[in-house]
Amino acid sequence: MKVIIVGGVAGGASCAARLRRLDEHAEIVMVERGPYVSFANCGLPYHVGGVIEHESDLLVANEQVFRGHFAVDCRTGCEAVGVDPVAKTVQLRDVASGAVTAESYDTLVLAPGAASVRPPIPGIDLPGVFSVRTVPDAREIREWIERGTSFLAGMDRYSGFQTVRPKRHAVVVGGGFIGLEMAENLVHRDFDVTVIELADQLLAPLDAEYGNLVKDFLEMHGVHVVVGDGVASFSQQDDESLVVSTRSGRELPADVVIVALGVRPETTLATMAGLEIGERGGIKVDDQMRTSDPSIFAVGDAVEVRDFVTGEQSLIALAGPANRQARIAADVIAGRDAHFRGTQGTSIIQLFGAAAAWTGASEKSLRRVGDDDYERVYLYPNSHAGYYPGAKPIAMKVLFRTSDGRLLGAQAIGEDGVDKRIGDLALAIQLGATVYDLEEAELCYAPPFGSAKDPVNFAGMVAAGVLRGDMPVSHWDSGGDAFLLDVREPVELAVEQVPGAVNIPLGQLRSRLDELPRDREIRVICRSGQRAYTATRCLQQNGFDASVLSGGMLSRVLWPTP
Amino acid sequence: MKVIIVGGVAGGASCAARLRRLDEHAEIVMVERGPYVSFANCGLPYHVGGVIEHESDLLVANEQVFRGHFAVDCRTGCEAVGVDPVAKTVQLRDVASGAVTAESYDTLVLAPGAASVRPPIPGIDLPGVFSVRTVPDAREIREWIERGTSFLAGMDRYSGFQTVRPKRHAVVVGGGFIGLEMAENLVHRDFDVTVIELADQLLAPLDAEYGNLVKDFLEMHGVHVVVGDGVASFSQQDDESLVVSTRSGRELPADVVIVALGVRPETTLATMAGLEIGERGGIKVDDQMRTSDPSIFAVGDAVEVRDFVTGEQSLIALAGPANRQARIAADVIAGRDAHFRGTQGTSIIQLFGAAAAWTGASEKSLRRVGDDDYERVYLYPNSHAGYYPGAKPIAMKVLFRTSDGRLLGAQAIGEDGVDKRIGDLALAIQLGATVYDLEEAELCYAPPFGSAKDPVNFAGMVAAGVLRGDMPVSHWDSGGDAFLLDVREPVELAVEQVPGAVNIPLGQLRSRLDELPRDREIRVICRSGQRAYTATRCLQQNGFDASVLSGGMLSRVLWPTP
Ligand SMILES: Cc1cc2nc3c(=O)[nH]c(=O)nc-3n(C[C@H](O)[C@H](O)[C@H](O)COP(=O)(O)OP(=O)(O)OC[C@H]3O[C@@H](n4cnc5c(N)ncnc54)[C@H](O)[C@@H]3O)c2cc1C
Ligand SMILES: Cc1cc2nc3c(=O)[nH]c(=O)nc-3n(C[C@H](O)[C@H](O)[C@H](O)COP(=O)(O)OP(=O)(O)OC[C@H]3O[C@@H](n4cnc5c(N)ncnc54)[C@H](O)[C@@H]3O)c2cc1C
Ligand SMILES: CC(C)(COP(=O)(O)OP(=O)(O)OC[C@H]1O[C@@H](n2cnc3c(N)ncnc32)[C@H](O)[C@@H]1OP(=O)(O)O)[C@@H](O)C(=O)NCCC(=O)NCCS
Ligand SMILES: CC(C)(COP(=O)(O)OP(=O)(O)OC[C@H]1O[C@@H](n2cnc3c(N)ncnc32)[C@H](O)[C@@H]1OP(=O)(O)O)[C@@H](O)C(=O)NCCC(=O)NCCS
Repeated sequence: MKVIIVGGVAGGASCAARLRRLDEHAEIVMVERGPYVSFANCGLPYHVGGVIEHESDLLVANEQVFRGHFAVDCRTGCEAVGVDPVAKTVQLRDVASGAVTAESYDTLVLAPGAASVRPPIPGIDLPGVFSVRTVPDAREIREWIERGTSFLAGMDRYSGFQTVRPKRHAVVVGGGFIGLEMAENLVHRDFDVTVIELADQLLAPLDAEYGNLVKDFLEMHGVHVVVGDGVASFSQQDDESLVVSTRSGRELPADVVIVALGVRPETTLATMAGLEIGERGGIKVDDQMRTSDPSIFAVGDAVEVRDFVTGEQSLIALAGPANRQARIAADVIAGRDAHFRGTQGTSIIQLFGAAAAWTGASEKSLRRVGDDDYERVYLYPNSHAGYYPGAKPIAMKVLFRTSDGRLLGAQAIGEDGVDKRIGDLALAIQLGATVYDLEEAELCYAPPFGSAKDPVNFAGMVAAGVLRGDMPVSHWDSGGDAFLLDVREPVELAVEQVPGAVNIPLGQLRSRLDELPRDREIRVICRSGQRAYTATRCLQQNGFDASVLSGGMLSRVLWPTP
Repeated sequence: MKVIIVGGVAGGASCAARLRRLDEHAEIVMVERGPYVSFANCGLPYHVGGVIEHESDLLVANEQVFRGHFAVDCRTGCEAVGVDPVAKTVQLRDVASGAVTAESYDTLVLAPGAASVRPPIPGIDLPGVFSVRTVPDAREIREWIERGTSFLAGMDRYSGFQTVRPKRHAVVVGGGFIGLEMAENLVHRDFDVTVIELADQLLAPLDAEYGNLVKDFLEMHGVHVVVGDGVASFSQQDDESLVVSTRSGRELPADVVIVALGVRPETTLATMAGLEIGERGGIKVDDQMRTSDPSIFAVGDAVEVRDFVTGEQSLIALAGPANRQARIAADVIAGRDAHFRGTQGTSIIQLFGAAAAWTGASEKSLRRVGDDDYERVYLYPNSHAGYYPGAKPIAMKVLFRTSDGRLLGAQAIGEDGVDKRIGDLALAIQLGATVYDLEEAELCYAPPFGSAKDPVNFAGMVAAGVLRGDMPVSHWDSGGDAFLLDVREPVELAVEQVPGAVNIPLGQLRSRLDELPRDREIRVICRSGQRAYTATRCLQQNGFDASVLSGGMLSRVLWPTP
């Protein structure tokens, strides 16, 4: 059996390694047009930022390892430029010499990844405008930045107290995860950074109100964020610096521009081979990663897969799924029975020491598929026991099915413990858990690590309370003309009040029920929703129509106050 | 309905709060003999160590909150001293005045916790010998320690380079989690600490080889650890300091002694009431937390419960289960249908910035119930991508059912990410996951937080490889006379070699197969087991009888070299 694998990074390299382990005698050829195989794309922004110091740190494996450990005929600088699916041959072009040869296969694996989207914006090819996809990309950005640094030496301004180095400007076009990682790393490199995003929120997979949180947080860290505006053109000044002009007429100076507008599946070869392309523009595969040609498999960023929760076709450009798909393809090629279970899109991004993460369905994606059998709750549990130093609140939004309690999705933001909780919830979704299961989860508790009731338990308890009818919930964006009852202590009102809300501290509620209307919906507010819940239980059982304003005052920042 | 709850901390207080939410009109009395309700027992060691600065930080709620927010008749300094289950009354003694009154109940909840074990060792009541269970306990220890501090002032020695404060000595009797937390916190308080444990390992729920790891780690941090030795007596010197004499004849000086020999369920009232006591000495309850008297419920450290994995009855003195049991008892009392699903014993302990954690069955517990339908693997994945700074290996031991792949238990130790992975695996056990499910888990990956293949995926992949027959495993304690093949690079041997092992680097293996015996079992060694696995696959498919030495050189420290 001869297998040719096109692409030598996450998908291709993992497939080659697994296939060798399963079949010692297969002939395996892996071709990569770039200079490196098995590199860490995901580390590129951090290499630009200097967090990952050496370029060589990004090279997880290399040709020697593939030849020596895995007996794989690994060829870098070798591009597949054509496929003949009938003759079962691939045309390979040696990048250095340009020479093209044909190589036959029994099975072909396409793992060509995705290409950075670079729309035909005037000036996009000017020097100083970069994409971030490969090691050479990162090297060019570093070199560009460092050249600029020496140019700045000696230009310090003196403020009367201290010398001040003038800040250079960076513009990041695109507010997806690569864009925001680049923005942060350019701040570390001492740039004044502006992110421009055409959509009206950052991090599209998040729901809008969480996108707002991320925006606020970045702004707190000095990043300028422009949403709802696109780039009209890039132009070069006399001093070689750039100007980014936006559709709405902004003119932003830039010493460096990063274009991070997302990626588009690399389907050139697949199209040549006449393979079916899916509705979202990725190579179409079955759950064994087989394309419409049974001798050709495809994996990774190039393919589209089924969303595990919504069942939609989706493009998920993430390394975990790419690795798993590659392993499954190798299994199937080696004659085993393996199936990809779809993707939950579990993702995380580090942001100035904090993190934003999500898994499963968002409210947006549920609405897109016309699913309204869900409810949402917002909560802000501590990352570990509040009495142990360093606990940080985690903002969590949890989505679950109203009819059966199944967990559908979760989003979280915070300075500590976000990865852990979204990981837990991702596993719960994978295993078909309900919010009732989360109530009973037995996670690690000692004061530095969690709480006797972990955030995951709280998520389950709150959601289950909603489903059991114990905790009717409302939201700041629920609309309608409800009576607002604030059960916080007077001292808390000094910090922040809700216009129109009536204050009865929880401790006085039972003796002041006669102050409340029996003919109106009452929304109960406290700091996080917890006291409001106790109050709501009391009101419900006394015949009032009450609900908890989910997440209380802490949720208020999610929506611009009307 | 009138409910009396005995005990006002994790179990009692949670039960009271939940019951009020479910039933606004129940009469709820909660009695606590100590001065505080709702305190954080789990924070006590850290308060002694000064990490949690103020005693008041430990008080999570108080009488006022119970009266005001929850309309609970909360009485501190009030001890239940008798129960008449026929008359349905409890005798309550006012601790201050000694006055005893009878109070009737419809339903009684026992949440009296557990008492620190204090065996009748001569001298155990001497001043300076403490247990750690309550806020007053912690206060006494702090006061004792601080008194000692002023005594030491002016006693600094001068070394020629610097002044050296003489170290005071502390002896911790018992190597369970409270003992080790106290040991660490006493080191923070500048004591020279010795831990004495009668069993031959620390942290009894861990398997012995992991207990060894913990011992080594504590010793690296300057704690003296004595295992396999017990205390014979405590005695007082003329200068009021103590000497701890052990059974084997050791004499250890001590300025403070902590006795942390575990806890024993508080069953005094239960016995008075004629309730059934279980085989392990805890109050016997059904899965609705009902005792043998249908009007009496019991929760928390006082009860014994079913082990979720082994089905054994067990005593699990942990706050998470106590809180959940209390919530379930409240549900049942309020007429709802709720069931406790048993406990996995998920635990974690912080140790000098690192952590040890476990969940589900240990090998010991499986052997105890005569279960040999399991296999174990050892692995050492990085806490996050190796190319991003700060990644630390996590030592993981994973146990799974041979017949169906079900995950049974896991133990982990490391400086980063241990809580996250044991939490994931705990959730997986709860949800009945197999190791095949772990292979497919889609957790959070960005370089600072994980890897494209998370440690949880690796655990699943390695275990699944074993079950599929792809990765026969052996262990350093497997015994037998196998041929040892070391596939590391020569440079690695310079650091550490295995006597008798033959070295053929992986890259040369395929061309040197004729150097290997065809009539003997070959155990393949590398650093972590990963290259050994690739080698094993190659050998297997070439007709050799090969296995991976699980965890490779990194596992070697688990067993004293023969
Ligand atoms: C800056 C950045 C940060 C990222 N951060 C994260 C993260 O934090 N977490 C996460 O999960 N994912 C992250 N990703 C995404 C992740 O890297 C990808 O999902 C993953 O690498 C996809 O694997 P792949 O094998 O499909 O494609 P790639 O890794 O892109 O590999 C495809 C390879 O195929 C080669 N190729 C293409 N066509 C041909 C041809 N015709 N002939 C020969 N070779 C060809 C390309 O040169 C390329 O090297 C990040 C990506 C980038 C760019
Ligand atoms: C030092 C220490 C550290 C710990 N660390 C952790 C940890 O990190 N993680 C973890 O999960 N667990 C930890 N625990 C265990 C955890 O605190 C217990 O499992 C939990 O508190 C048990 O709850 P409970 O309600 O059953 O008992 P308790 O919390 O002990 O409460 C019982 C209360 O009942 C009162 N009482 C008893 N008898 C009577 C009576 N007759 N009348 C009136 N009142 C009575 C007692 O005074 C006591 O306050 C730790 C415990 C200690 C002591
Ligand atoms: C380097 C690379 C080729 C390795 O591929 P690989 O060998 O399949 O994958 P890993 O190194 O993750 O190892 C996984 C294998 O080792 C095994 N393994 C892991 N730890 C082990 C241990 N302690 N003992 C035995 N086996 C072990 C696993 O079971 C698995 O084998 P399997 O798939 O046959 O079950 C590939 O991961 C790669 O190219 N990575 C970099 C590119 C990339 O992913 N970029 C995007 C993210 S930045
Ligand atoms: C303080 C104490 C009495 C609180 O009891 P409690 O109110 O049941 O528990 P919590 O404060 O954890 O809150 C949980 C409740 O609030 C609800 N809740 C949590 N976050 C919420 C939010 N954001 N919005 C609405 N409700 C919320 C939960 O659903 C749950 O209610 P439920 O049980 O009716 O579903 C109890 O936890 C205690 O005594 N703790 C200290 C003692 C202890 O545990 N010691 C051992 C560990 S150190």
